Amino acid sequence: MPSAVVSILGASGYSGAELLSILARHSSVRIDKLFANASAGKHIHEVIPRLAGVVDASLESYSAEAVCQSDIVFIALPSGEAMNLVPELLKRGKRVIDLGGDFRLTDPGTYERFYKKTHTAGDLLGEAVYGLTEWNREKIQRARLVANPGCYPTSILLPLLPLLKEGLLESKGIVVNSLSGVSGAGRSTSPELSFVEVNESVKAYKIGTHQHIPEIARAVADLAQANVFFTFVPHLLPITRGIYTTISAPLASNIGEPEISEAFRQYYEGEPFIRFVPVPEIKHVAHSNFIDIGYSLHRESGRLIILSAIDNLVKGAAGQAVQNMNLMLGMSETEALL
Amino acid sequence: MPSAVVSILGASGYSGAELLSILARHSSVRIDKLFANASAGKHIHEVIPRLAGVVDASLESYSAEAVCQSDIVFIALPSGEAMNLVPELLKRGKRVIDLGGDFRLTDPGTYERFYKKTHTAGDLLGEAVYGLTEWNREKIQRARLVANPGCYPTSILLPLLPLLKEGLLESKGIVVNSLSGVSGAGRSTSPELSFVEVNESVKAYKIGTHQHIPEIARAVADLAQANVFFTFVPHLLPITRGIYTTISAPLASNIGEPEISEAFRQYYEGEPFIRFVPVPEIKHVAHSNFIDIGYSLHRESGRLIILSAIDNLVKGAAGQAVQNMNLMLGMSETEALL
Amino acid sequence: MPSAVVSILGASGYSGAELLSILARHSSVRIDKLFANASAGKHIHEVIPRLAGVVDASLESYSAEAVCQSDIVFIALPSGEAMNLVPELLKRGKRVIDLGGDFRLTDPGTYERFYKKTHTAGDLLGEAVYGLTEWNREKIQRARLVANPGCYPTSILLPLLPLLKEGLLESKGIVVNSLSGVSGAGRSTSPELSFVEVNESVKAYKIGTHQHIPEIARAVADLAQANVFFTFVPHLLPITRGIYTTISAPLASNIGEPEISEAFRQYYEGEPFIRFVPVPEIKHVAHSNFIDIGYSLHRESGRLIILSAIDNLVKGAAGQAVQNMNLMLGMSETEALL
Amino acid sequence: MPSAVVSILGASGYSGAELLSILARHSSVRIDKLFANASAGKHIHEVIPRLAGVVDASLESYSAEAVCQSDIVFIALPSGEAMNLVPELLKRGKRVIDLGGDFRLTDPGTYERFYKKTHTAGDLLGEAVYGLTEWNREKIQRARLVANPGCYPTSILLPLLPLLKEGLLESKGIVVNSLSGVSGAGRSTSPELSFVEVNESVKAYKIGTHQHIPEIARAVADLAQANVFFTFVPHLLPITRGIYTTISAPLASNIGEPEISEAFRQYYEGEPFIRFVPVPEIKHVAHSNFIDIGYSLHRESGRLIILSAIDNLVKGAAGQAVQNMNLMLGMSETEALL
Repeated sequence: MPSAVVSILGASGYSGAELLSILARHSSVRIDKLFANASAGKHIHEVIPRLAGVVDASLESYSAEAVCQSDIVFIALPSGEAMNLVPELLKRGKRVIDLGGDFRLTDPGTYERFYKKTHTAGDLLGEAVYGLTEWNREKIQRARLVANPGCYPTSILLPLLPLLKEGLLESKGIVVNSLSGVSGAGRSTSPELSFVEVNESVKAYKIGTHQHIPEIARAVADLAQANVFFTFVPHLLPITRGIYTTISAPLASNIGEPEISEAFRQYYEGEPFIRFVPVPEIKHVAHSNFIDIGYSLHRESGRLIILSAIDNLVKGAAGQAVQNMNLMLGMSETEALL
Repeated sequence: MPSAVVSILGASGYSGAELLSILARHSSVRIDKLFANASAGKHIHEVIPRLAGVVDASLESYSAEAVCQSDIVFIALPSGEAMNLVPELLKRGKRVIDLGGDFRLTDPGTYERFYKKTHTAGDLLGEAVYGLTEWNREKIQRARLVANPGCYPTSILLPLLPLLKEGLLESKGIVVNSLSGVSGAGRSTSPELSFVEVNESVKAYKIGTHQHIPEIARAVADLAQANVFFTFVPHLLPITRGIYTTISAPLASNIGEPEISEAFRQYYEGEPFIRFVPVPEIKHVAHSNFIDIGYSLHRESGRLIILSAIDNLVKGAAGQAVQNMNLMLGMSETEALL
Repeated sequence: MPSAVVSILGASGYSGAELLSILARHSSVRIDKLFANASAGKHIHEVIPRLAGVVDASLESYSAEAVCQSDIVFIALPSGEAMNLVPELLKRGKRVIDLGGDFRLTDPGTYERFYKKTHTAGDLLGEAVYGLTEWNREKIQRARLVANPGCYPTSILLPLLPLLKEGLLESKGIVVNSLSGVSGAGRSTSPELSFVEVNESVKAYKIGTHQHIPEIARAVADLAQANVFFTFVPHLLPITRGIYTTISAPLASNIGEPEISEAFRQYYEGEPFIRFVPVPEIKHVAHSNFIDIGYSLHRESGRLIILSAIDNLVKGAAGQAVQNMNLMLGMSETEALL
Repeated sequence: MPSAVVSILGASGYSGAELLSILARHSSVRIDKLFANASAGKHIHEVIPRLAGVVDASLESYSAEAVCQSDIVFIALPSGEAMNLVPELLKRGKRVIDLGGDFRLTDPGTYERFYKKTHTAGDLLGEAVYGLTEWNREKIQRARLVANPGCYPTSILLPLLPLLKEGLLESKGIVVNSLSGVSGAGRSTSPELSFVEVNESVKAYKIGTHQHIPEIARAVADLAQANVFFTFVPHLLPITRGIYTTISAPLASNIGEPEISEAFRQYYEGEPFIRFVPVPEIKHVAHSNFIDIGYSLHRESGRLIILSAIDNLVKGAAGQAVQNMNLMLGMSETEALL
């Protein structure tokens, strides 16, 4: 007996397809409309063959009217498209979860600098709730518009926020390296993402210019009331799914392992999707909504090494979006996710 | 007309096989004896089928007498074995290039702490020349015993040494992350290195305890007369070959891009195997003796991001060993390597 | 409200872990005991970290008494072990689903020839029901002992049986090639299955000697009343999951596409886990219980090309086992599998 | 002292780059001009970074005059382009090795049917020599125009030809399955060849319609004077390089293992690039010009299983092209290839 109806804009991309896979297992949600302009008219299984026999629906061209039966609208479109759709959707009383980057920053100028686009719905930036579930539950429950976090920020913020909020790390000298599977780049025709170019290789990219940098900074300021200077280097790995983040952060003076573990306990005890492990591995979180976190103190340099692993398409996108939807609809937060 | 004769101890491992592939293309070297105790009696192509039709030789059990025709003996055995063989080889007048870790440190106590073995030839630690070719050419030419560098240290030291020697980086707060292909672990029966466990995953390992940490510290002290505090996190990647190193290092005050590029120019101009590129990628160095280096200054945090890529089996092992051999024999340094 | 209780023998292997993942999503089954002798005393998440927070149970040493609360016992042990356990389990009134090969053949002599072991429970070979769900539903429902099919046979029999039963193919000249991911070999310490040996390569193995050959022949005889002569070449691929089977079979005279598609329709219309597609791809069935089947008639040679793809750990092992369990317990056949 | 001068048309594709890597090691050849219209004006290392420091040359737009210094011109362009260039090149007295498919068939109609293009130089189809080195040495030595074989045909013809020529196989019922790495498709922007779509998957493609089918048939007719009916199914694998071919062929009556091995001995004894092994593996031939062949007789079905492995970019393209060049120039056939 479904108690909620949802639609998806951008159902044919990797995040959209993952969303469909998860929602198909949800006991209390009915999928209403699937929009994918480029594939409009096709059955979902022509575009995502693995969903044949699982989801039975056709793709349509988007129109605001067509989503009017939906309680929640997921937007899984490339960044830059949601800002043109959200105002109308909100006006029609829909609640929106945007998996793209359009509503994650507060400042339109920063958006423009990092996304190379002028923001067309800047007035909504203040209202949008940053959907990092474990840190914003109350606001998410009531939100009209949830900005679902980026995959890198999810993997970086969850381990860092408790430590920053408790003042256990110095604000300067934090170094973040992340490794991402290729699905993070979305469905692509870029020759750089062809199998032969990616396989058996690794490369760093967007060093110091990645659009997730201001997202992290903003979330750290908002959620941990801290200000940090960090370097962030994302790397492309020859795997399909997963993000592995390795952080080296200088400890504040007199901070040792007990303070670190106590902070994690305090913020995350009982969290259904946060696991502490000796050393995370991507394979342990693939296809799941878990984040695995490990850490280790390095006495000589006074630094803490923090490691995390998530599935970029699940906890880093569609899984966290459904977690947020569950919250917004007053359902069990883990429904369809365990 | 070969002008030198060489033997290999440990010809059946990954480094040994790579050494054979390279030496088979060498115009002036004849391979004399191949030793591999566990496979003694077999033809090389039974153990390394890709060398059938390329190298024609049988594997033998090692004996000191059997290598007496060789000008140079390569040791490509797991760390801990070379120290029992080298004294005898030197006594018989052989020159030795050890690809393992036994002679890379100067202090037997440090060796014991990181390699979990007591050093049995500690008196030779002082004599052994660290075979980081570009930094030790003169000593290598005359050396009786060359300690070929580890794969991680090669990828870390080559980009760091010029900057540390010129005092362009602060000594505290250097953060080193490296990603390694699986062949770096050698031929293995460990279930952790089985295909299913490694594929589509990433994990960090030996955080703060890797035996290459004191090797790096020692080389920095010897070759750049510097003392650094750094964190080093190695990661295992699902690729066969290659190491990718990402360094975030605090710049000394008033240092900018011109000083950095000038230091690199000064130390490496004309080096046949060091290339500067915008962003290194493992695929560009795989199966070659090149190291590709890139860097990028991050103004807000006052840090320099340095990236490097090598093939762990070539520049990180067998290739650099042949480069050293070429030097020791007075041959062109690039012979068989371009 | 779980209405059945199950136990697993061999919970720490790849099939056992997959079984746990599936059963954890099952609405009407409670997992009672998990046995894994080598890991007895450990919590499941020490052995299979991805199940932490999903399955909460410890591993025990097996004893017949310990499974007495279970309605169904799954055996996910290497072939050769189940035959020593099943007689006792049946005596105690348990129903058993064996994922190994011990009860798939009818003739102990053939078992001995292909499995290189003497069968110790030969008297049960006649009773065991071959668990190819779509072809044996009635018998499976009532079975005490289900021999869950091998992964290769599942991928080969499902496309072939309707055609053979209807006499659409000649019995001589059928050629079967299968490609398998590495998890099919189970958790392994074999150096041949290490990442470096498998990655970026392919090899055929057990040509003409694979233990699934008599399993296929027996099932064809039993289920399609046919007798076929075929060559079967399995290949090892550098992927974790999946089997791809390509069959080239001579058509009986006067048989064309209409007869083929009619036979498939007749036997498989409405089957929840059998999909017909233009060309199967492993990625479309990975992590699912589907088999995708495609075919194409080659007029010049009078042959039919048939292609199929499954996930070896799901439809080829744990998924089909749960499908059979659902049948045996009178539950919806698709429960926990869609 | 280079004794020959060569140019390459299409130097920036995968085959062109491989050709450059091989020719850079050649002791007697000087690379003159590199043409790549889309990248004209760039240095080779901007397009193929791994060749920096190995090949020093710029890419130019093609013109017939520009190649006038070359003894041999390699064409490594997509099929359909060479036919427009070759007449002019021959007129200017150049000798040409075409790595594409334009001159491999004798009949323009067949070309049009399989390549979907009208042949514009049909009069040269009769003159072009099929460059399967081991079978056409004399003609290749004198050829003006060599049609270098396709990758699949090389892997299929070399094992089959001796057996067909000696009449050891029946002409009907031969079944050929091949598995190819992704580089066989060339540099591509096709979304189907993106990393995520190819990784952890397998699919068959172009079943019964692949353009290499008439190439194989024609070569079998010409070189073995035989006529065969076979099915051919190519598959795409998630590896970068390599082709694995598995053939199941009905033996002619009274043919056993001795006749098979004698035929192979007779045709291939002493061949520098043909190795017989128990079971070929792609990793043993990767980056080499070898073909590894294995076979095994299956008594019950009266069939021979034949396996072969090559590197599609080397023996299947650039390596065989250089082997042919060596022949044409009267040099050692193995120069630059061992």
